[in-house]
Amino acid sequence: MLFESPSVERLVEAFRRLPGVGKRTAERYALHVLAAPPEEARLISDAVREAREKITTCSQCCTLTESDPCGVCANGARDHATVCVVERPSGMMAIERGGAYRGLYHVLNGALNPLEGIGPDELTIERLVRRVETGGVREVIVATNATAEGEATALYLSKRLAALGVAVTRIAHGVPMGSGLELADGLTLTHALQGRTKLG
Amino acid sequence: MLFESPSVERLVEAFRRLPGVGKRTAERYALHVLAAPPEEARLISDAVREAREKITTCSQCCTLTESDPCGVCANGARDHATVCVVERPSGMMAIERGGAYRGLYHVLNGALNPLEGIGPDELTIERLVRRVETGGVREVIVATNATAEGEATALYLSKRLAALGVAVTRIAHGVPMGSGLELADGLTLTHALQGRTKLG
Repeated sequence: MLFESPSVERLVEAFRRLPGVGKRTAERYALHVLAAPPEEARLISDAVREAREKITTCSQCCTLTESDPCGVCANGARDHATVCVVERPSGMMAIERGGAYRGLYHVLNGALNPLEGIGPDELTIERLVRRVETGGVREVIVATNATAEGEATALYLSKRLAALGVAVTRIAHGVPMGSGLELADGLTLTHALQGRTKLG
Repeated sequence: MLFESPSVERLVEAFRRLPGVGKRTAERYALHVLAAPPEEARLISDAVREAREKITTCSQCCTLTESDPCGVCANGARDHATVCVVERPSGMMAIERGGAYRGLYHVLNGALNPLEGIGPDELTIERLVRRVETGGVREVIVATNATAEGEATALYLSKRLAALGVAVTRIAHGVPMGSGLELADGLTLTHALQGRTKLG
């Protein structure tokens, strides 16, 4: 117990809600906030409240955004005929950091997981279907994670979209760039071999 | 840039102020806060503000506390003749977790560091001297960190307190419990050998 103070306990518990933060890290964050000038604490407190109040979801791609539609959907210079499906906004951010993709996105808000009660209705799958039905989309690239849930979701999407006359593709899985065979696991190598492409 | 939103940028910058948090981790925290229900963001925001408003420093030992004097200083069952000097409240917490120490503390709020402009006046050294001068303290245990700054501070304290008739001791440095010689660096082993004690 940190200084036997209920308000500090609540602060530590609040920080523990952040992803990957355990008790020790939460205590370190709390100590920083408490030892810093009061303006510092106010800055963090206000930033959390204001950001959450201003952020909403894009009515087209369901990502987190301050303006609706989001900057990507509103960008006329991007390829509106290609939609990349990701589980979370963080996946969209990761692809944007790559810088090579010029199409649009669709954020599912998770992946199918029957054990945790997450079926198609818990995700934004119907909104994706409506987007495709509305027309203009030629290809849906499924970039869900390479996990059991992500693969199941990819399979479900390919079946759900099959009748709509849209190409459904899956991103490649294989050895990461800059890495070698020695560091890759067996499943990754199996995928890398299966997904081989012609050279030259 | 995360969703091209100034408020999200401010949130990421706010999280980056926490110790050991870089851009990627701050973005992960921000995404968690934004994707979670609004109550979650409010809980974190309120916890930071309230804790910082309620916490003050103990007028005796200078640690962070909700009540003044702090729980340790106010505890009559503890040994008020022994004062353990630490750099930060986190050091005090670490020793309290150990559970074996029954004396009081004094928090310096840092260590001497002339290069960064931190001299004796920036620390709570004079308040420690006054505590000792007031009487009742028989031993001052210097538990500053085993860094250049911590060692310099320990040396300074031993000189500053020498004339006051109080015993000034330094915590032992050596091989950590549960660890072996193979994992210890040369300086630690030198200290461990110099600080050897008689067996049996």
